[in-house]
Amino acid sequence: MEDLQIVEHVVRQDPKVIEQCVISGIPREDMHKVYCDPWTIGYDERFGSKVRLQQGLMYYRPNIDDSQYSYPLDFVPIFNCDTQEITHIDIPPVRRPVNKAPPNNYHPAAIEASGGYRKDLKPINITQPEGVSFTVKNRVIEWQNWKVHVGFNYREGIVLNNITYNDKGTERGVFYRLSLAEMVVPYGNPEHPHHRKHAFDLGEYGGGYMTNSLAVGCDCKGAIHYMDADFVNKAGSSQTIKNAICIHEEDAGILFKHTDFRDDSVIVTRGRKLLISHVFTAANYEYCVYWIFHQDGTVQLEVKLTGILNTYAMNPGEDTKGWGTQVYPGVNAHNHQHLFCMRIDPNIDGPANTVFQVDARQGAGEVGSTENKYGNAFYAHRTKFRTPQESVSDYDGSTSRTWEMCNEGKLNPYSGKPVSYKLVSREVPALLPKGGGLVWKRAGFARHAVHVTKYQDDQLHPAGRHVPQTSGDPSQGIPNWVSGEAGQQSIENTDIVLWHTFGITHFPSPEDYPVMPAEPMTLLLRPRNFFERNPALDVPPSYASTPSSQLAKAKSGGGGAIHGSDPSSVSV
Amino acid sequence: MEDLQIVEHVVRQDPKVIEQCVISGIPREDMHKVYCDPWTIGYDERFGSKVRLQQGLMYYRPNIDDSQYSYPLDFVPIFNCDTQEITHIDIPPVRRPVNKAPPNNYHPAAIEASGGYRKDLKPINITQPEGVSFTVKNRVIEWQNWKVHVGFNYREGIVLNNITYNDKGTERGVFYRLSLAEMVVPYGNPEHPHHRKHAFDLGEYGGGYMTNSLAVGCDCKGAIHYMDADFVNKAGSSQTIKNAICIHEEDAGILFKHTDFRDDSVIVTRGRKLLISHVFTAANYEYCVYWIFHQDGTVQLEVKLTGILNTYAMNPGEDTKGWGTQVYPGVNAHNHQHLFCMRIDPNIDGPANTVFQVDARQGAGEVGSTENKYGNAFYAHRTKFRTPQESVSDYDGSTSRTWEMCNEGKLNPYSGKPVSYKLVSREVPALLPKGGGLVWKRAGFARHAVHVTKYQDDQLHPAGRHVPQTSGDPSQGIPNWVSGEAGQQSIENTDIVLWHTFGITHFPSPEDYPVMPAEPMTLLLRPRNFFERNPALDVPPSYASTPSSQLAKAKSGGGGAIHGSDPSSVSV
Ligand SMILES: [Co+2]
Ligand SMILES: [Co+2]
Repeated sequence: MEDLQIVEHVVRQDPKVIEQCVISGIPREDMHKVYCDPWTIGYDERFGSKVRLQQGLMYYRPNIDDSQYSYPLDFVPIFNCDTQEITHIDIPPVRRPVNKAPPNNYHPAAIEASGGYRKDLKPINITQPEGVSFTVKNRVIEWQNWKVHVGFNYREGIVLNNITYNDKGTERGVFYRLSLAEMVVPYGNPEHPHHRKHAFDLGEYGGGYMTNSLAVGCDCKGAIHYMDADFVNKAGSSQTIKNAICIHEEDAGILFKHTDFRDDSVIVTRGRKLLISHVFTAANYEYCVYWIFHQDGTVQLEVKLTGILNTYAMNPGEDTKGWGTQVYPGVNAHNHQHLFCMRIDPNIDGPANTVFQVDARQGAGEVGSTENKYGNAFYAHRTKFRTPQESVSDYDGSTSRTWEMCNEGKLNPYSGKPVSYKLVSREVPALLPKGGGLVWKRAGFARHAVHVTKYQDDQLHPAGRHVPQTSGDPSQGIPNWVSGEAGQQSIENTDIVLWHTFGITHFPSPEDYPVMPAEPMTLLLRPRNFFERNPALDVPPSYASTPSSQLAKAKSGGGGAIHGSDPSSVSV
Repeated sequence: MEDLQIVEHVVRQDPKVIEQCVISGIPREDMHKVYCDPWTIGYDERFGSKVRLQQGLMYYRPNIDDSQYSYPLDFVPIFNCDTQEITHIDIPPVRRPVNKAPPNNYHPAAIEASGGYRKDLKPINITQPEGVSFTVKNRVIEWQNWKVHVGFNYREGIVLNNITYNDKGTERGVFYRLSLAEMVVPYGNPEHPHHRKHAFDLGEYGGGYMTNSLAVGCDCKGAIHYMDADFVNKAGSSQTIKNAICIHEEDAGILFKHTDFRDDSVIVTRGRKLLISHVFTAANYEYCVYWIFHQDGTVQLEVKLTGILNTYAMNPGEDTKGWGTQVYPGVNAHNHQHLFCMRIDPNIDGPANTVFQVDARQGAGEVGSTENKYGNAFYAHRTKFRTPQESVSDYDGSTSRTWEMCNEGKLNPYSGKPVSYKLVSREVPALLPKGGGLVWKRAGFARHAVHVTKYQDDQLHPAGRHVPQTSGDPSQGIPNWVSGEAGQQSIENTDIVLWHTFGITHFPSPEDYPVMPAEPMTLLLRPRNFFERNPALDVPPSYASTPSSQLAKAKSGGGGAIHGSDPSSVSV
């Protein structure tokens, strides 16, 4: 973070920047009100890769507590990290003086001034008087048959290792390692120099490095276990973020329920989930990352986007040309995507795994034929990925496409199908920047929803190990691992890694401003043919009755049902 | 429910059924252990539409508390509702005697016998000591600027009417009416008579009629307000389900957060949601329906599937041919889809609304061109639906497709775009039964993700008002409303209805058995260009500090931040 603040310090004193501020309508004595979010330059062919550069996205704060994102400036200084100087300024052909609109703030004084806080929210208290249901030994969490090591590094943030599930006394491997390995946020405005806005927040900055300390203790509710994050920083020394990782349980609603209509015998069982989370701030945006374990064997990744839109200046009445939205007078929020790459190193009952693409398909035979008279036949079509090249695949919603990570050496005794975990992910937009263009070249991982590679020690980073100022000529990371000779290796029945790109396309609107309500996206890793039955049947029910207990109740006029020990709900 | 039990009573005494039971290996003195789930016949061309018929899906319970779904029988009696007789039995060419496997039960005695309940779950208590944040007057709920009338009928279950949002003192229309209007569950096994398994649970049975009474009070946690459901039943008399509708609040996690990296000024605000829900039991399956209101103006529909798979008999070693999965020895669970049709009657600042399909598209100009030099241009392409015929559309994940319901007569003052709500729905499989086949003809609504019609008083039921034993020749409901003359009406700037089909394709696995962990699916109706800013900024933050308060704190060594009144979390 210190690095970032140096840029701001330098721009405020640079005469060329001061000159541009004056042109923008900012008095030269107001340079302490000028703010700079330094982004790594991405790649700019004019300057190449030899000198470490930052592009300074510039803002103005009329008053110390105003949000600077309502006062974007229209020029972009380039900062040389080696000489600590401004070496260039990108100035647009059409100038846009600093916004004259009143501030659009979200802090308490602003809310109080505009009507105050709502007073009709009664507290919800969530307590665990007997403590939590998990144990922590060093960095290993045990909870509800799950066991997981919680790692952390400057880049990926939380890394989950050695994830196992205790299946009736047998500790079974599920995943060797799970992480968010990379992300890219391409912006869709083709006007220079906005094409450089396509941050790789993990590879260029580090999701761990930017993680919030939750020391104030109020991002989550209930009984929280915090872990610190310790990692090596850019200077090579150790750094600690206190309370970086939040670990807590939440009620998860109905886990299962069934009523028999004949006799009203019923079972209803409530679920519980374990969340291991961190929040990181990437300049204007925040990313809240939740790794969620469920009692039914499901692992869920949820990402919530919040924080503040990246904004750019616009003149009154200016046409955004469809590349952005005026979210407040004088504030243009450009179209963008948030594309995440999840790295899944499966260990489904051991490291020898194989990936299948699974598509729902209509059965053969036309309507009226003997084999499909009524046309209702359908089945799960499975395509085995034999090589990395074959594994390059996109999402298809119409076939309910999923991807299964299987151990073909172990079959479910009932279904006869290989034990597996399937990836169920529905938020999978196409990479919108065009083939052959800058983002497409640099963010090769984002061209497709799924790539599978043979495990290699040095393949952790889907856009390459070193990302800043790579040109994408040639592309780093995944495109290399799935093409040429590497792309022809066998990935059957061996130690493999599945890389999954998911995310959203974001066309801003005024509702997202001045701070954005959290936008959630989620994906599931679900056991299929892994267990012999629903593994959560032994979770104590909140209510259960059987046909025989119902019968006894009818005869005696009382009793019959088993109530759980959990205090039940209160009617109001 | 009485109707259903009559069928079971009759089959147990019918000599032809008894004969089939004996062939299946059930002693004739055990007929009280034979169970029947009567499904409406769907449509069977041999019997036509003139006589009301039920198909009896047959099961056996070795002991009163055993789940009958582990002992499916292989024949299907046809019950004539008028004469209350068995008029026919469908007998498969290959016989499958009753299952010999031990029971697979989920009730407490069975769990105790196989190791007992887990003992390591500590309670989570959720309390609202000051009461709830909503008010109820008759059937109108007010909560966090929302106002909604909660209706209920035998067919759709919960119906939400007159949904408005109080925007700083102005009560603005959002939706006139929301409901789940129809559903179909087609099974994918083409062997006779499984093609008849494609229940329209709302149109043939009634989601209201089958709703669970939550009188035991333990399906939800916290402070619950229950509403009874009163409706007219088949006999024409009034019927009440006590505590049919559950209304309660839940904590919703982070609503928004932002930290400024320079000064660590921060705001974090927790969200709250209001859930209006019911659970209905459709023979073996349960559907949990949650209508969820959020503080940021979003309306969410979540459906959880739980209960028990529909099962059919299989012989040891029998090949399921890909049409199903052996989930337990002798138990074949067939492939199926759950396709729901949501009826949305928008009222976006009044009834004159228009629907646009919105797709993310790459900008014009090849990489290297003046207008798109780096290839990064993309925008939201909007297609106006001018007629019902034009509105027939499918989901496209690659373009992040959404559908916007707009009031073109009212533009957002900042963005200049029409006020709107967009439908964000990502679980939208194609209807798998083939074009021209039985299900395709009867479930016309499910052929496409979206249809838009001009509002008509008598158009409430997407598969037709009367569904049982319709042949689909011609198709009832939506296909008629979007074709011919009706399909050419103008749906611009008028009172319209959007019909949305969503759901999942379900290939069963042993984890889903003997009772299925809840499988959630969800969709959002989100305000876009409807508000001038994030409408939840006045929700009291759990923590807030400003640059100036941080500065003061740094100078004084104390204070600065505003803590919310909510008790914050406890570290463990
Ligand atoms: Co965004
Ligand atoms: Co299902």
